[in-house]
Amino acid sequence: MKDLKECIRSIPDFPKEGIIFRDITTLIQDPEGFKTSVDLMENALKDIDFDYIVAMEARGFVFGAPLSYNLNKGLVLARKKGKLPYKTIETTYDLEYGTATLELHEDALKKGDKVVLIDDLLATGGTLKALADLVESTGAEVAGMLCVIELPELKGREKLKGYKVETFVSFEGE
Amino acid sequence: MKDLKECIRSIPDFPKEGIIFRDITTLIQDPEGFKTSVDLMENALKDIDFDYIVAMEARGFVFGAPLSYNLNKGLVLARKKGKLPYKTIETTYDLEYGTATLELHEDALKKGDKVVLIDDLLATGGTLKALADLVESTGAEVAGMLCVIELPELKGREKLKGYKVETFVSFEGE
Repeated sequence: MKDLKECIRSIPDFPKEGIIFRDITTLIQDPEGFKTSVDLMENALKDIDFDYIVAMEARGFVFGAPLSYNLNKGLVLARKKGKLPYKTIETTYDLEYGTATLELHEDALKKGDKVVLIDDLLATGGTLKALADLVESTGAEVAGMLCVIELPELKGREKLKGYKVETFVSFEGE
Repeated sequence: MKDLKECIRSIPDFPKEGIIFRDITTLIQDPEGFKTSVDLMENALKDIDFDYIVAMEARGFVFGAPLSYNLNKGLVLARKKGKLPYKTIETTYDLEYGTATLELHEDALKKGDKVVLIDDLLATGGTLKALADLVESTGAEVAGMLCVIELPELKGREKLKGYKVETFVSFEGE
């Protein structure tokens, strides 16, 4: 088992000055590092009863897809506006500057489905909260949210109060 | 084992009139369908000697990630311009209208590395050819290209002559 923190590259001033970006490309290019991250998530999912994995575009696909394969659960893609080819439902939410829109296919989820949301990183929690709201608008239930990395200073867990949130490596003031 | 063609949804007039879009979201939401597609690709990779999987943004991540996990090979992301956080190399190539740019991290591949390229769909082959050129500019070698779906009428294999190309379901004039 690899130390995830050692496998993640920190890049100052991306995407803009003052931000330290936590880069998972070095983690997933290391077969042992990638395996460790997926296995930790898979282990955490053993305690959760769910039907589908909902993976967030685009880095969430990288972790959601092997979880879907390994656990034999259907994979649903949450995508940015205009990328899904069939009829969609959407939600628009605030970013630090401006807004963003997320979509799901309108027939992907239905009342009573239980899903877990997968992304690479928990920062402010704004995107995951928006996705949870969109999932719940179908009548489906969010049984958990898993991200590889957490930035606790941005207080994402406060925005996601009431949800089961699991992360596996934390960067704080580094 | 599922019939892949039955799991793929055909959507007329997306992204524009006259195009029939082959939608893999219905395939990957079906656990057996997703497993079949990954297992077929994995089986084809058994005959190829390679070091890394290079997955094309964004649907290529969905198939490349479980292959990377299952085969214990590092996963490299090929992304659209501006998405990779570290220093990149890039290539710009022609689309039907306008151009597109693909990037790799400049330190992801090096001379002598053998890679396979993974995407969901082989159409004209323009994007895969551009990615192969970019990979080869590092001194790495393209040992194969795998896509789930092929549209043979668009003659992608002609553009990719000299490469080992494998696909697993074909749509022709349907």
